[in-house]
Amino acid sequence: MERRFIEYISSFTTLSKEEEELMLESYPIKQFRKGDCVLEEGTITQDTFLILEGCIRRHCTVDGVDKTTGFFTEGEAVAEFESLSFNKPTTHSYSCVEDTVAVVVNSEKEKAFYKRFPRFEELARMETEKMLGKNQEQLSNFITKSPEERYKHLLTNKPELLQRVPQHQIASYLGVTPESLSRIRKRISKK
Amino acid sequence: MERRFIEYISSFTTLSKEEEELMLESYPIKQFRKGDCVLEEGTITQDTFLILEGCIRRHCTVDGVDKTTGFFTEGEAVAEFESLSFNKPTTHSYSCVEDTVAVVVNSEKEKAFYKRFPRFEELARMETEKMLGKNQEQLSNFITKSPEERYKHLLTNKPELLQRVPQHQIASYLGVTPESLSRIRKRISKK
Repeated sequence: MERRFIEYISSFTTLSKEEEELMLESYPIKQFRKGDCVLEEGTITQDTFLILEGCIRRHCTVDGVDKTTGFFTEGEAVAEFESLSFNKPTTHSYSCVEDTVAVVVNSEKEKAFYKRFPRFEELARMETEKMLGKNQEQLSNFITKSPEERYKHLLTNKPELLQRVPQHQIASYLGVTPESLSRIRKRISKK
Repeated sequence: MERRFIEYISSFTTLSKEEEELMLESYPIKQFRKGDCVLEEGTITQDTFLILEGCIRRHCTVDGVDKTTGFFTEGEAVAEFESLSFNKPTTHSYSCVEDTVAVVVNSEKEKAFYKRFPRFEELARMETEKMLGKNQEQLSNFITKSPEERYKHLLTNKPELLQRVPQHQIASYLGVTPESLSRIRKRISKK
C-alpha cells in the first residue's frame, strides 16, 4: 500500500527520494475492517484520513436515528474540519462500509512536514480548495434538487457507490425513507 | 475601508509595514450596489471576494426558478471553488442583497503574494479549512434537519440575516415555499 500512497501523491507532483521517505515516515497507513469506526462522534481529532482502498461513511445520530451525511472512496480525504480547525468535538462519526486502507495524516506531523518541505503547503491549500468546491456543489444539490434528482445525480456521478453501499444508507443520505428510494428506483427503471 | 481590511487580517496575524503595503497594492477594494451581480453564472473566475461590509447571496437558476444556496456577510469570503480549482464555468451567481464593499483577491496575485511572504500560505490553508468545516456543517444540517429545524438553526446562529434578507430568499434557501416559511414562523412565535 506504500506504493499506492506514493503513486497517489505523485499524481500531483514529482516527489524527491527525501520527500518520499519523510512522507512514509510521517503518515502511517492503517487497515480497518468493515464496520470499524475510524472516528467517533464527540471526540476531538487532529487526524485526516486519505483513503487508498475502501469506503467510509460519515454519519450522526439525530433523535436516536442514524443519519448518513456523506460517503468517501479511493483518493478522497476524510476529515472533520470543524474539529480540526476549532479544536471542537466532532459532530459526526466515520465508519467503514468496506474493509478500508487509509493514510492517517496527523496535523502536527503535517505542519512539521510542510516546515521541512514548504512547497507542499501550497499543494495542500489547493487540495483543500478542491474539497471545498465539491462540498459547495453537494450543498447546492441538496438545496436545489428533489430526492429523485439527487438520486439521478448520484447515478451519473458515482454509480459504483450504489453497488457498494447498503440501500438504507443511500436512502438516508438522500434524505428519504428506504421505501421512497425503492419507488424512485422503480420509476427511473421504467423510463 | 483600507483600515477595516487591514484590521480584519490583523485579527489573524500581526502584519509588518511591508506586508500591509503589498496587501493593499495586490488586492483592490470594490464598492457594489444593492442588486449588483458580483459574479455571474457561467463565467470562469479567478477572484475571491472578502466582504468588509454588506451581504452577498449565492444563487442559481433551476428550471427557470431562482434558487438561493447561500448568504455571506462581513468577514466571510465568497468564492466558487469548483471554478477556481478546475477552471470551470461557475454554476452559481453571486449578487449583493445590500450595498456591499469587498476585497477582490485574484488568485494569480494571491500566489505572487505568498511567494513574497510564504507564511501567509499556511494561514490561507487554515482559513480554507475553516470554510470547509462550516460548509460540512451546513451540508449536514440540510441532510439531517427538517425545514423548521433549519429555520431555528438560522434563528440561533445568524439571527441578523433574517432582518437583512427578503423572506422569499430565506424560504428558497431553506428549501420551502414562502407560504411554508410563513407557517413555520407562526408556529414558532406561538411556542
